Order: sequence, then structure tokens, then C-alpha cells
Amino acid sequence: MITLYGSPLSGNTHKVRMALAFLGLPWDERLTDAAARQSDAFAALTPMRQIPLFVDGGLTLRDSQAILAYLAARYRPGDWDGHTPEERSAIALWLSHAANEIANGPAALRLARRFGLAIPEDHAAAVTARFLPVIEAHLERRDWLAGDRLTIADLAASPYLALMEDAGIDPADWPAIHGWTRRIAALPAFPAIPGWPGEGAN
Amino acid sequence: MITLYGSPLSGNTHKVRMALAFLGLPWDERLTDAAARQSDAFAALTPMRQIPLFVDGGLTLRDSQAILAYLAARYRPGDWDGHTPEERSAIALWLSHAANEIANGPAALRLARRFGLAIPEDHAAAVTARFLPVIEAHLERRDWLAGDRLTIADLAASPYLALMEDAGIDPADWPAIHGWTRRIAALPAFPAIPGWPGEGAN
Repeated sequence: MITLYGSPLSGNTHKVRMALAFLGLPWDERLTDAAARQSDAFAALTPMRQIPLFVDGGLTLRDSQAILAYLAARYRPGDWDGHTPEERSAIALWLSHAANEIANGPAALRLARRFGLAIPEDHAAAVTARFLPVIEAHLERRDWLAGDRLTIADLAASPYLALMEDAGIDPADWPAIHGWTRRIAALPAFPAIPGWPGEGAN
Repeated sequence: MITLYGSPLSGNTHKVRMALAFLGLPWDERLTDAAARQSDAFAALTPMRQIPLFVDGGLTLRDSQAILAYLAARYRPGDWDGHTPEERSAIALWLSHAANEIANGPAALRLARRFGLAIPEDHAAAVTARFLPVIEAHLERRDWLAGDRLTIADLAASPYLALMEDAGIDPADWPAIHGWTRRIAALPAFPAIPGWPGEGAN
């Protein structure tokens, strides 16, 4: 049985939760809050003390993008991680954006504005302002970030953009991004997370 | 002919330069300084206005990790980007670290301390202090970041760690990282970059 260490409101956890749900794999979710992440037991499992952490038998994987890369290669090779060098590159591009601009932009702003964490908020706002027009323009011309179908690029990049209201950003200003996150929420087996607007929402 | 838009001292450019040199591919390098990156002509090629930018006929690729993913899938599939789901995940992990912790840690410190750019230096120092022990411990037990050979994980993660003196970090404090960057510099066809210590250096 797969164990997913995470927390209900963590967008990084949700990347993996979506992948597991879409794959139809059963998993056991273990609530790992800030205190648990500081424990020695958790540090022994993962040196950065971050969630999500994925454990399946003897296999332990950290980093949400890296867990998605494993699930894609094992369960949806090509389809989820790219059939051609060009598709692989396009997917890697959005995994980079998820790891950098999204994590240090909208995700960091959400930590500050919804959860009150002390982060360099001006920097996060600048990263966000630089990045959002790029992905908005990209999604004006297509339904999915890479190729013509859902890939791990969409799973990695979408949670913190779907949750942008938590970061003090108005989704109405970013209609292509908003349409794409609703498209993902409309997929069969999509797992709910508080704050991600689905088909019934505006 | 491949055109690589970059600059001589850019570590991100060097990731791609190393890949092309190791692959034995010819390329034409086009100096793209800060002023050139602000031009409308460059923005039309790449929305984030960043180097490196890779152009090969009708194909234009941005983001150093994404360019490496393309080169691996096209020229060294499996060997450079992972044969198994576990290897693919391990490589994706270090691409995430390259895009996030290394870019916002040692690379950002180098921009501030060697090139005088205004960046949130305390934040970059904190990211660096958190990340370096993790990769140091990892490299104490192996020669390469993922698997038993050079992969794009090493190409993506190494330049800004090899150039850590530019960021005000003493390589003597990080012997496993330093040994690994020298191992890369000792490979046939390694292209030189000022500041990366090779076999003749300490």
C-alpha cells in the first residue's frame, strides 16, 4: 500500500493526490503537520523535511515533481511524461516553473496571506507578476500545458494557481488559467481540496 | 546548426554548453547580455526573457532543465534521463533542486556578491544553508547524483555549486560537492568556464 505523508491544504500534496486518484491507485494518507515535519523520525525519512513524501514498500520518494515523474514513468509512460523529446522538454519546462516560479510566487504568497508565514512577500509578488502573464498567454492557445492531453505538467503546475484566491490574486484577472484549473477539476476522480473552484463555482 | 543564446559566465548557459560538448554536437553561441534580453526581438523568442535559449531549425526551447531534457531524450535516452521509473524520479528530483534551491540559493548569492545585483540576499543565504548539507550528504555516498553515471541531474545541478566561491562559499567546507564538480570537469570534452576548478586546481 502506498503511504502519502502530506496535509489536507498542501498544494504540493495535492499534486500527488490527484495523480493517485486519476490512476485509480489506493493510498493511505498520513497527516504530517509542521510539528511532525520537525521530528527526528520524519527527518530520517527525508532530509529536506518536506511534504509530500511518498512511500511504497521499500521505495521512498520526495519532491512533488519527482514523485509525479515516478508515477508517470511507472503507470502512464509517454502519455503522462512525453512521447517525444519535444514533449519531454515541454513537460520538464512546466515542472521547472512548478518548482521555481509557482513555488516562490503564488504558493509563497498563499503561505504569507492565508497562513501568516513570514516569507519575503515583495519578492514573491514580483515572481508572481512576472510569471502569471506567461502561463496565461500559453493557456489562451491550448487546453493543456504540454501536448493535447493531461500530463504531469498540469498536475505539477495547477494546484497553487487554482488556489490563487488564497494568495490574494483574483482569478477573474486570469481567465485562461482559471478555465484550465476548472477543466482539471472536471476530470473523473478529481479529489476535492478546499478553495479549488470546480464546475459549480464561478 | 544549433544556436545557443547565452553568456560566457552564465551557469545556466553552461548546463547546456556541457551537454552539447559531451554529445559532440556543433553549436553556434550567441552572446545575449542583459540589454539584449530586454529587447523586443528577444522577448518574441522567449516570454521569460531568460538565457539559455536553444534554437535548432524550427525548434525553440527555453529553461535550462527543459533543454537538457530534450537533449537527453533525443541523444541519450535512458542513459541521461533514466532507464527506470526510480531513476527518472531521482533525476527529476535534482532538476527540481536545480530550478529551485540552487537557482534561489547559491546562484542568487553569486548574482549578488559577484555581479552586484539586488536580490533578497538573506533569503538566498537561508536557502543555501538548508540545501548544501543535503546534497553534500548525498554525494558522500556516491559519485553521481542519480544512478551510477553522469545524467542530466549532474549537468543541471553542478554549475552554480562548482562556482560557489563566486557566491562567497568556501568549497573546502563542502568536500563531497567539490569532488563531484571536479569529477565532471575531468570528463573528456568538458568546456571551461571561469571559476570552475578542474584537476589542476585545489
